[in-house]
Amino acid sequence: MKKIEHIGIAVKNLEDSNILFSKLFGQSPYKEEIVESEHVKTSFFQVGENKIELLEATQENSAIARFIDKKGEGIHHIAFDVDDIEAEIKRLKKEGFTVLNDTPKRGADNKLVAFLHPKSANGVLIELCQEIKL
Amino acid sequence: MKKIEHIGIAVKNLEDSNILFSKLFGQSPYKEEIVESEHVKTSFFQVGENKIELLEATQENSAIARFIDKKGEGIHHIAFDVDDIEAEIKRLKKEGFTVLNDTPKRGADNKLVAFLHPKSANGVLIELCQEIKL
Repeated sequence: MKKIEHIGIAVKNLEDSNILFSKLFGQSPYKEEIVESEHVKTSFFQVGENKIELLEATQENSAIARFIDKKGEGIHHIAFDVDDIEAEIKRLKKEGFTVLNDTPKRGADNKLVAFLHPKSANGVLIELCQEIKL
Repeated sequence: MKKIEHIGIAVKNLEDSNILFSKLFGQSPYKEEIVESEHVKTSFFQVGENKIELLEATQENSAIARFIDKKGEGIHHIAFDVDDIEAEIKRLKKEGFTVLNDTPKRGADNKLVAFLHPKSANGVLIELCQEIKL
């Protein structure tokens, strides 16, 4: 765990939330991206060395839509930057954490990602992410 | 908003969660602190330029206890470092955010703090914090 890469916030309407968070941070999102595999539209703000990722569901039964149905809009996950995601998955499983996908998958922002189940991590959905070197 | 200062996570039992998060981060909390005015025991981990703050309620009717009753353990707030908390409160009120305490109050970790109501910020409880210069 080198650092917090980003914090993911589930929103109902990305356009409205882009305006709101632009007011909060005094700057606009630096990019938007659709991640088809996760059924989300995302936007990113840079704050210090971290990013804030806003996520709007593009399908009714997607993870973000279900999260909002259950808990309302709000903080959805914390993502940590790691050097070697496969080694980190192995280490955390050994420590007793439940890893949702043993094989890293492609996420937004050119990353390989894996998630830890919130039930094994104090109710916090934790994402591990490793930048894909081109 | 200079950077994310810390992320606050509500926990039921600080001792158990210290062990869990020590496994996650591969390091122990660097300090613990009781904030009487907020009825919490806290511990802090350093991750990159950010901190993770764990919060356990010390009173049944405190904000953290009510949060856990309603939503369960999990991410409670994001705190942003600001240079001039009074100017930032003024700016954000003008932008339409609801500030929970117009006058900054003393928080953990030698900070002056103020909170924005989650209803005005997409379900996210946002803390502004400014270090108290000694």
